[in-house]
Amino acid sequence: MVYKTRSYRRFDESHRIDNKILEGLVELARLSASAANRQPLKYILCNTPACCEKIFPSLAWAGYLKDWNGPEPGERPSAYIIILGDKNITESFNVDPGIAAQSIMLGSSEAGLGGCMIASVKREALRKELKIPDNFDILLVLALGKPVEKVVLEDIMDGDVKYWRDNENCHHVPKRKLDELIIKL
Amino acid sequence: MVYKTRSYRRFDESHRIDNKILEGLVELARLSASAANRQPLKYILCNTPACCEKIFPSLAWAGYLKDWNGPEPGERPSAYIIILGDKNITESFNVDPGIAAQSIMLGSSEAGLGGCMIASVKREALRKELKIPDNFDILLVLALGKPVEKVVLEDIMDGDVKYWRDNENCHHVPKRKLDELIIKL
Repeated sequence: MVYKTRSYRRFDESHRIDNKILEGLVELARLSASAANRQPLKYILCNTPACCEKIFPSLAWAGYLKDWNGPEPGERPSAYIIILGDKNITESFNVDPGIAAQSIMLGSSEAGLGGCMIASVKREALRKELKIPDNFDILLVLALGKPVEKVVLEDIMDGDVKYWRDNENCHHVPKRKLDELIIKL
Repeated sequence: MVYKTRSYRRFDESHRIDNKILEGLVELARLSASAANRQPLKYILCNTPACCEKIFPSLAWAGYLKDWNGPEPGERPSAYIIILGDKNITESFNVDPGIAAQSIMLGSSEAGLGGCMIASVKREALRKELKIPDNFDILLVLALGKPVEKVVLEDIMDGDVKYWRDNENCHHVPKRKLDELIIKL
């Protein structure tokens, strides 16, 4: 499922996602590992057009694609899961957000969906828009939908990690090779 | 697979893990999402008794089990994957370590193995022991093996997140309920 789970940024926005599916994805995060089993993460679910419209303007899309300001209407995410850190439980969330986000994204692939983890978020704007209480840190926004784009992986060239789009709107992602990642001491 | 992927701390140490399996697990991390696609994580693989013996003393085990100093000889991990952050690429590793660790742990379940993500590491001792160069941050140690313990999840009581072991050495992990995790605004 890891192979299938790419970062998608264009969706069939008319494909709505039931709240039960989002709850099922949070259930996967709930059952995943948590540092010292503290379980400080909380989740906001959003799947209505009205709620999605509130979240979208707070997100930055695909930093390397300079000519693209994010998905057009009709190709925007049809749901979001916002991952919050509850500071009433702990101030340090360690690697929990990455674990939870990966469980959710793998689960979304399994459900025939896809999406993108977004850390580049206008946090104060989003907090104000959704009236998120101050005891929650906004850690990540997971954009979800029915992907309509093709994403291909390729070997990295000259150390350049920037993803790019070809003329047919296919999204290319350069990945470092395995032997670059494994350190032999 | 998320349901099956529990944190295991006792193993059949005689079950050795082939290097090809460890490489396959790093391949899953390699194909997972990375902030701005920077891919700054590197990996040290360890599967020989000699190497495992060097790593084990640097690890803290199960903080809530006060009477237990970690697995006895014979029940120790038979392999490790150390996740490093390459500071020559970036100084901020964001949620990448959690994403990579979850991909690896889910993959290890699929391979009939199990393990535990350990962040409580004597980093300078480990660095010295393995001669890890200074440009690498030691982010997480993943202990891997063939689990020999039973781990059960249960609903949290009175907000107490501490895991515990019963008389039959079964490990109990209290999890917050789904409705506590989903914030309705």
